[in-house]
Amino acid sequence: MSTFKKVDAADLKYFEELLPGRVFSGEAISTDYDHDEMTEYGHFLPEAVLQALSTEDVSAVLRYCSEHNIAVTPRGAGTGLCGGCVAIHGGVVLSTEKMKKVLEVDVKNMTATVEPGVLLMEFPKSLEGTGLFYPPDPGEKTATMGGNAMTNAGGMRAVRYGVTRDYVLGMEVVLASGEVITLGGKNVKNSSGYSLIDLMVGSEGTLGFLTKLTVKLIPEPKVNTSLLIPFDSLDKCIEAVPSVLGCGCEPTAVEFMEREVIACAEEYLGKQFPDTSANAYLLVRLDGASDAALKPMIDLLTDTVLNLGARDVLLADTDERKESIWNSRGAFLEAIKGSTPSMDECDVVVPRDRIADFVKKSVEIGRKLDIRIRSFGHAGDGNLHIYACQDDLSDGEWKERVEKVMDELYEAARALGGEVSGEHGIGHAKRSFLHESLGETQMAIMRGVKAAFDPKGILNPGKVV
Amino acid sequence: MSTFKKVDAADLKYFEELLPGRVFSGEAISTDYDHDEMTEYGHFLPEAVLQALSTEDVSAVLRYCSEHNIAVTPRGAGTGLCGGCVAIHGGVVLSTEKMKKVLEVDVKNMTATVEPGVLLMEFPKSLEGTGLFYPPDPGEKTATMGGNAMTNAGGMRAVRYGVTRDYVLGMEVVLASGEVITLGGKNVKNSSGYSLIDLMVGSEGTLGFLTKLTVKLIPEPKVNTSLLIPFDSLDKCIEAVPSVLGCGCEPTAVEFMEREVIACAEEYLGKQFPDTSANAYLLVRLDGASDAALKPMIDLLTDTVLNLGARDVLLADTDERKESIWNSRGAFLEAIKGSTPSMDECDVVVPRDRIADFVKKSVEIGRKLDIRIRSFGHAGDGNLHIYACQDDLSDGEWKERVEKVMDELYEAARALGGEVSGEHGIGHAKRSFLHESLGETQMAIMRGVKAAFDPKGILNPGKVV
Repeated sequence: MSTFKKVDAADLKYFEELLPGRVFSGEAISTDYDHDEMTEYGHFLPEAVLQALSTEDVSAVLRYCSEHNIAVTPRGAGTGLCGGCVAIHGGVVLSTEKMKKVLEVDVKNMTATVEPGVLLMEFPKSLEGTGLFYPPDPGEKTATMGGNAMTNAGGMRAVRYGVTRDYVLGMEVVLASGEVITLGGKNVKNSSGYSLIDLMVGSEGTLGFLTKLTVKLIPEPKVNTSLLIPFDSLDKCIEAVPSVLGCGCEPTAVEFMEREVIACAEEYLGKQFPDTSANAYLLVRLDGASDAALKPMIDLLTDTVLNLGARDVLLADTDERKESIWNSRGAFLEAIKGSTPSMDECDVVVPRDRIADFVKKSVEIGRKLDIRIRSFGHAGDGNLHIYACQDDLSDGEWKERVEKVMDELYEAARALGGEVSGEHGIGHAKRSFLHESLGETQMAIMRGVKAAFDPKGILNPGKVV
Repeated sequence: MSTFKKVDAADLKYFEELLPGRVFSGEAISTDYDHDEMTEYGHFLPEAVLQALSTEDVSAVLRYCSEHNIAVTPRGAGTGLCGGCVAIHGGVVLSTEKMKKVLEVDVKNMTATVEPGVLLMEFPKSLEGTGLFYPPDPGEKTATMGGNAMTNAGGMRAVRYGVTRDYVLGMEVVLASGEVITLGGKNVKNSSGYSLIDLMVGSEGTLGFLTKLTVKLIPEPKVNTSLLIPFDSLDKCIEAVPSVLGCGCEPTAVEFMEREVIACAEEYLGKQFPDTSANAYLLVRLDGASDAALKPMIDLLTDTVLNLGARDVLLADTDERKESIWNSRGAFLEAIKGSTPSMDECDVVVPRDRIADFVKKSVEIGRKLDIRIRSFGHAGDGNLHIYACQDDLSDGEWKERVEKVMDELYEAARALGGEVSGEHGIGHAKRSFLHESLGETQMAIMRGVKAAFDPKGILNPGKVV
């Protein structure tokens, strides 16, 4: 890693000719590029920031960097949570922020092809009037679609519709050598050799640079409703999850939330949540083709949860009510962030019947190590977001304690059959936890896979493997 | 490849001690083991057949073969269609036929864990009374679940529920070295490093030997119905597919069939098909939580296809009618096989809006080269099964012509953005087509991936890469 060449004047001259006006070096580099959303994981200013406009740009940059042994860190909107797009080994950041065209919406095949820099919040505009819909729904709407594919982002609707991986049909990828390959296409089914596209999804830019993405679309569900279900305790709330999933109501999203986190969001947003009488809530979204189709699903779900001790079932059938509830849910991360000078997060996934155990364990760990722990997450798929908050601890104390907290949280997840990351990825911040979780044999295979794509190791060095 | 050691008396002695009564060599080897369902791709008798009972057996055999450089061909039920489980480089066949325990059905997490030799037709018995359901539904019900995972088998219900890959959550795999690794588990979501489990799915036993498989289950749909929709022409029939998929009726299966293939199945089964008045049919299955939920879906679909020129919509709402139709559909492959002394098949997948083009092209190719072509398949996901029949051609003529037919079919698929295999895999029979389709760069990456798992190349040599 230490053998990467530093970017010098000759390199900058080459890049400037190639990408006129889209090369930044020295003081011209905005400090925005030295971190992602987790400033806690350090600041690393690259030696140059390059903005690509096309596959050709990316190919030329990679060919040059490969020949000159310059590290290349791919970057989208920089909204990651584990330092995946940060140039920890220097070199250049190659940004997709100017590659934001929706290239095609193919209504007949129900696919769309986009450049990697298209923002998640902007993409739905391209689908207006087609009756089609892109299900992945990560909380961070200013993320890029390329970044979502490269981290296999999940989101709220994964319970019913699956995660980003399930919607990636095709990719154009530039290899570290500069060569361009096409993986998949518009085919919805494939058993043609090793699934390199599944390897590329979630590889965090370490195997190739994504330049085009073809995603699957589905018919937009015509109606939806949300149900807010209060419980006396978190235990009761989470113990209801397997029955909610199994009763046949086909939930789109099943989120859990606790009173403290809701209060935090109320303060952050300056808005009241529709109900704060209970300790814990399940929030369930149902999608359907018509109100008539939805009605029996609502009845099924209502009977199920009332039988399991829910205090009530609050139906959010107006847009206003839905918005109020889901906006609160969407603000949890920012609200917790705003309540403490610093925090650290873990994004483990555990089998769905172990969620309650894991949440209890996290509370215990917080108590034992005297750190405030807040959690919320995707109860429907066992993916929890656990936050440790610095509050008024000194930096030294905080650093020491949070390290212990994270060690214990990951150990607890492992003991319950869980994995390090449900949807945020590994980046550089979680590499040691990944290694501990998977063991040396699997890490060695992953390094072998990396070498098959990027023998010189110039692509996003220091990440994942 | 030529450097593999032949199995000798000392090896057999070792194996016999390890697997008493489960080692076959010389004339004791049944010729069943020298081919899969496609005898057209040649007969290759292994030097020994070993039947494993446990992970420990598999691990010991692989460790020994790795040390002694003996080729190992994993084999399930031998129902493949491209020679994937055939020992083309000799050595041992290591069979899972005695590893057929369902180890656990976990109702709360909606998962099941099985040994690889469990047959697809036997697995549903383990789910009786749980209300749970395993969606993948390949036509060949005597296949093993391990074989299905290793070829990423598809099947009829893939349109709504996806393919085998979408249901594989966890694997226990023995590496070529004999080391045992665990991939995934019961978690339904994961962004923890490269997705080795997705790489293993569809790898046809070339990267590791599957010894345990954890699959996702879903709540069993409470009711279902099938609709048989006659059209005047194949064109009209297939042109209706995008609208069927897009109208919001959420079809589980969308199959197309032509009059000639139906007639072939009628003869083979000695049973009448409910309708034979039309040239082409769509067969659509709908699943739902209740008759009330299904009703609006049926109406939506009926309106859609009648508007697109369907002659009628025949509702198969009794078990008897459903059985009659689906049994015919299930018999197509066997019926075509029975109608000709030899045949060859291709299993390409194309974008759904190109199915009609591809079927037309295949008819043209058959006419031009004077070979009878029959086709049917999964219209809902663009996966076609095209059969070339020898009929009364001499072996020499047949061989020459079928090679040209296949070359032209794969070229046509490529030109339409298709891929070599939708669900049957590559084995040894389709390697050259895969190479042509993907190009040398991707094949080199795949060889690198193979080397990361199996540096000596003893696992299923000569397959896929």
